[in-house]
Amino acid sequence: MLLDEFSIIETFFQNQQQQRDDVVLNSGDDCALLKVPNNKLLAVSTDTLVAGVHFFEDMPPEALGYKSLAVNLSDLAAMGAEPAWVTMNLTLPSVNEKWLTEFATGFYQLANRYQVNLVGGDLTKGPLSITLTVHGFVDDKNVLRRDAARPGDFIYVSGMLGDAGAALKILQSEIQTDEKIKNYLIHKLYYPKPRIELGKKLNSFANAAIDISDGLVGDLSHILKMSEVGAILFVDQLPLSKELKSLSEKTDIIKLALTAGDDYELCFTISEKNRDQTIQLLNDFDCTCIGKIDDSKKLKLINTDGSVYKLSGHSYLHFSNV
Amino acid sequence: MLLDEFSIIETFFQNQQQQRDDVVLNSGDDCALLKVPNNKLLAVSTDTLVAGVHFFEDMPPEALGYKSLAVNLSDLAAMGAEPAWVTMNLTLPSVNEKWLTEFATGFYQLANRYQVNLVGGDLTKGPLSITLTVHGFVDDKNVLRRDAARPGDFIYVSGMLGDAGAALKILQSEIQTDEKIKNYLIHKLYYPKPRIELGKKLNSFANAAIDISDGLVGDLSHILKMSEVGAILFVDQLPLSKELKSLSEKTDIIKLALTAGDDYELCFTISEKNRDQTIQLLNDFDCTCIGKIDDSKKLKLINTDGSVYKLSGHSYLHFSNV
Repeated sequence: MLLDEFSIIETFFQNQQQQRDDVVLNSGDDCALLKVPNNKLLAVSTDTLVAGVHFFEDMPPEALGYKSLAVNLSDLAAMGAEPAWVTMNLTLPSVNEKWLTEFATGFYQLANRYQVNLVGGDLTKGPLSITLTVHGFVDDKNVLRRDAARPGDFIYVSGMLGDAGAALKILQSEIQTDEKIKNYLIHKLYYPKPRIELGKKLNSFANAAIDISDGLVGDLSHILKMSEVGAILFVDQLPLSKELKSLSEKTDIIKLALTAGDDYELCFTISEKNRDQTIQLLNDFDCTCIGKIDDSKKLKLINTDGSVYKLSGHSYLHFSNV
Repeated sequence: MLLDEFSIIETFFQNQQQQRDDVVLNSGDDCALLKVPNNKLLAVSTDTLVAGVHFFEDMPPEALGYKSLAVNLSDLAAMGAEPAWVTMNLTLPSVNEKWLTEFATGFYQLANRYQVNLVGGDLTKGPLSITLTVHGFVDDKNVLRRDAARPGDFIYVSGMLGDAGAALKILQSEIQTDEKIKNYLIHKLYYPKPRIELGKKLNSFANAAIDISDGLVGDLSHILKMSEVGAILFVDQLPLSKELKSLSEKTDIIKLALTAGDDYELCFTISEKNRDQTIQLLNDFDCTCIGKIDDSKKLKLINTDGSVYKLSGHSYLHFSNV
């Protein structure tokens, strides 16, 4: 076996962060030993990014290091959890010092922001892919679950939708635009912000939540299906950046906002009462109301004039079609 | 993104095991929610297996499903931990129903033996590789660490060494032998036994421990280096199966036992006093004394007649050479 040494990872990743008190034994043994606070649940999520599938081979390693952690932390955010630890499995065609150094720089840019300790992993030889497994803590009573949306809840999203999808089209040369807009959009694709702070604030107010990794319609549908409810979604309420809007004649920006992945914003539902109590919070975190939960068990997309928005030939979406 | 659905994994992996009480929320949400017992530490370990690097592409999927979990559980065993949960990241070139069914069969053969719950993961499209991250519990005071060997400790290994290495040579057509021996050795390579029960018994008696994944000399050297000690190892005491011995004219079986990986036996050190108290246990688990820890900071390999065993031209091994 080649490269089967966490020690190589350590060479590039060591001494870049302060060790947490709850890490009893870090890497260098068969397991990491960790202390979960009493009365907290452990939240665990994992994602693999494969070169050529989830990112282009020429993606800057610093961005890749950042984004690998961001997409995983985004899952913790969607549960309202506090991040703590991460393990990293790197599969690389070869040990490239420059690549590893840049990857580590991007990784720690985010890891240190949230005091997430790297506590183990391995390095293997093979086609480039990255698997991170993140661990966090959450209070049993304040968890954001997918199955907790209730009829009457307002549906909110954080930030802007569709930017990452537009960036992908630019990288694939499907759209041309000026440098400034291009840089903004590609930065959104490469450096998504996991909504950790928002998730932690929302976990005692919101009912259901999910992070938008695969597109709003698909991800919201997970909430609807698991909560056994439906929704009306107002297409003209979708939060769109001015950069995305500038591309409106070149591509279907509404479709991007509805279906493109990689934005890693939170989509959540909140009762009217709790919404009224948290208006300031929702404003502070740039959250936008885009619709309402109902008991129809269908997702209806509605235009400003009340007509049905047609997405890929469907007037509404049964979950089996999503 | 294709195949990015844990739901596909669930189709093949669901309903094959009883849910543990400490799993508050299983897959189907952004994170699994898990309960670690108060006063226990969480032990976490992860390993990636890449096709063509860690296993041959034609390895039977059932064996691969078993072994992927076995090599990870082996790390828990080496800490003396009790297994609890696992996440699975599968990267597959395509969704092959037969392959997934067989892989799941092998996986659950072991998962159910130790009541390890699959609590999350993902499925991505790409070159075949498997990452598992295992979680277990261990008592703070009864942990088997690599850095706890003391001069005077006896060095033990469980089971037999070198069988998996011989199997690899058979699969690579470097050695020919009869069907019965071949089947025995390949079974040892494909279905290693993680020494969970032994680790749990030893954790209050042994000082240091490691699982032998990369070969006895290399793995024991990790203990020596981290404990800042040395060792004498008696080559004629190495436990060798009669099947391996039958190959003694075809290959250097001592070298295999010293350096070949994949046996996943435990190597541990135990004080004389504790050894005397646990003789019956050590016998029950087929453990063999192979040497002794000293304060030399070198690993010396000694033949029956007291002469130095020469491994790859070295009469003894400094850690820098291992």
